[in-house]
Amino acid sequence: MQLSAEALSLRRSLLRDLIGVSARPGMISFAGGLPAPELFPTEAWAECTARVLANDGPRALQYGPPFRPLQEEIAGLMAGWGAPVAPDQVFITTGAQQALHVLGRLLMDADSAVVLDEVVFPGIRQAFGGFAREVREVPTGVAEGLDLDAVAAALGRGPRPRAIVVVPEFHNPLGTSLADAARARLVAEARAAGVPIVEDDPYRALRFGGQPSRPIVARAPESTFYVGSFSKMVAPALRLGWIVGPLEIVDRLRVLKESVDLETSQLTQRVAAAFLAGGHLEGHLARARAAHRERLAVMLGALARHLPAGSRWSVPEGGIFVWAELPEGTETGPLLAAAIEAGVCFVPGLAFGPHGAARAMRLNFSNASPERIEAGMAALGRVLDRAPALLTGQEAG
Amino acid sequence: MQLSAEALSLRRSLLRDLIGVSARPGMISFAGGLPAPELFPTEAWAECTARVLANDGPRALQYGPPFRPLQEEIAGLMAGWGAPVAPDQVFITTGAQQALHVLGRLLMDADSAVVLDEVVFPGIRQAFGGFAREVREVPTGVAEGLDLDAVAAALGRGPRPRAIVVVPEFHNPLGTSLADAARARLVAEARAAGVPIVEDDPYRALRFGGQPSRPIVARAPESTFYVGSFSKMVAPALRLGWIVGPLEIVDRLRVLKESVDLETSQLTQRVAAAFLAGGHLEGHLARARAAHRERLAVMLGALARHLPAGSRWSVPEGGIFVWAELPEGTETGPLLAAAIEAGVCFVPGLAFGPHGAARAMRLNFSNASPERIEAGMAALGRVLDRAPALLTGQEAG
Repeated sequence: MQLSAEALSLRRSLLRDLIGVSARPGMISFAGGLPAPELFPTEAWAECTARVLANDGPRALQYGPPFRPLQEEIAGLMAGWGAPVAPDQVFITTGAQQALHVLGRLLMDADSAVVLDEVVFPGIRQAFGGFAREVREVPTGVAEGLDLDAVAAALGRGPRPRAIVVVPEFHNPLGTSLADAARARLVAEARAAGVPIVEDDPYRALRFGGQPSRPIVARAPESTFYVGSFSKMVAPALRLGWIVGPLEIVDRLRVLKESVDLETSQLTQRVAAAFLAGGHLEGHLARARAAHRERLAVMLGALARHLPAGSRWSVPEGGIFVWAELPEGTETGPLLAAAIEAGVCFVPGLAFGPHGAARAMRLNFSNASPERIEAGMAALGRVLDRAPALLTGQEAG
Repeated sequence: MQLSAEALSLRRSLLRDLIGVSARPGMISFAGGLPAPELFPTEAWAECTARVLANDGPRALQYGPPFRPLQEEIAGLMAGWGAPVAPDQVFITTGAQQALHVLGRLLMDADSAVVLDEVVFPGIRQAFGGFAREVREVPTGVAEGLDLDAVAAALGRGPRPRAIVVVPEFHNPLGTSLADAARARLVAEARAAGVPIVEDDPYRALRFGGQPSRPIVARAPESTFYVGSFSKMVAPALRLGWIVGPLEIVDRLRVLKESVDLETSQLTQRVAAAFLAGGHLEGHLARARAAHRERLAVMLGALARHLPAGSRWSVPEGGIFVWAELPEGTETGPLLAAAIEAGVCFVPGLAFGPHGAARAMRLNFSNASPERIEAGMAALGRVLDRAPALLTGQEAG
């Protein structure tokens, strides 16, 4: 099923409008993908910036090649995650969305097909579906997990797809992770079909429970394009991400990136390298993980109290999103306006896929304090109690 | 004439390789488009960053909408340049290359034509020619200027082109500017043909002689897309630029930009606004203009001493480039290797267009000190004296 450019853009608009709504005074927002602002390492970033500008001087403000010490730091991070890579393989991008965009342009053309989850972050649809003739959707869900038989069928059907794109760790929007066995089968199916894997992995550093599973790029380095990001790990305004892929494609990525924004800020790259080399990341992540664990616990408790019988939700071990599904036959879209009126917002499931998600909502648990999560979920509960008709869209015309 | 994607990328490769060559120890480079590093406002930037992070706190590191005070500051700059615009019209981008890219995607499609100078910055070819079926080239030159009869013919021929892209102020690579009368005729021809104008204007603030001419966007606001940049005006590593266009296209630009990199760094936007509001720009520009005036004078003197009889060159009133043409029948491409060996480099004219430029070289005069410009031009002069055969490519096989 192919979404038109217009439909894609409408979904992005919904998310964008919700960002505007989220910023209203007093609004308790579970809608964005925003990290906890009070945890941002503002002082460390200011210190590192001052040091880089003092020590590196003009080089920090000039055009320049990818900053090697940052590539080395990122390679070190990835080794710690079980994916040893060479610094030369680390291709720096202006955020993960740019990484997805250049990979979309690298891999896709107007005649090609791509395999995506039927419920997935719109930025992935835009980067890959936007360039493709055919988007093959494979079922995935909170309880069911990714349907690997459907994956095998979608990969094996002609014409051969140019990529399968997955978010194996703390899926956006589902919050779920692929188990080791599922990763192994996914790799085997993609290899058998000769289809590259794009692994979008922005949330990995934010695991606060369970056991981490090795990135897919460590299992199939020859045919995986890994996408990493500083946005959730440190702060979104860095606009800093990376791709790890086979060395021989780095030159082609560079040509594509040059056409989009020439290069990523030399200053940002140097400050990020100083931040990592200065050991600021671990303390920041420890604080973020502890806060996220607490906030998720509050949200899960509130879901149990406030959602109607027959609802279900994911129980993530990290990341920033919970996916909650109301009982069969309901729709969350018509509920949103009443929720906003009550001072709380979420993203309706339909923003993430054309079907299968109408009764769901994506809830971010990282941005609001525990008290505000409690209050926002109580407000959402009151909306649900008061207006059951909203749930089936009967008032939405 | 349509350049293949491969040819475009080869040109970008040549420029990129030259950036590598430029960085070799001892190399005197006239090849890059690099500002004078010793003039970068490193201290002011560090101060403004510290202040923004202290005062704005987490908001400076979070996702966010375009930063309104920066839009207002830029609107103020443009009013000072004779082009009053509303802050809402100022669309912030991650550098001017991103502005060109999203405009290319907005205006062009696979069936469309674009009108470009036959000699032009490869990033413009890539952003517009890369999406087009047909690139209509119009002759331009140091002595001849833009051929406005050819422009009229190219605009008037069917199918109607989707855009004409011009660099009216301190053209890259020519260094020349369009006179008032030429701007007026260009606007009249484009209006008559119903073709939008893209005005790439990254060098305007760097005028050190002559009289400024109003931007084209002030003459035809309804059909001009203006592209501005902080890269040459302040520093490249900010990766900050902007588009001014009709208000009704801002939403479409936003959708396109979101697909490329989501948004421009909130931190960079806030620091840039603080830099402008703090009055740091004027002092910086005064220093940059004085240095550039001196450096250009040294380069023009050296050109007169070292280039063979029959050569000619532009005499810019600002910007950062001189375009020098050796006598008829010569070629600068084969000369480059010998020049690099002698410790000096430039960009051969052919990097900027498929024809008309073989005997030319683009020389940057902003990056090196007057002493190094003198030394580099003397070295280039010795290469020219010693090896006239190189000039006609007889040794290049």
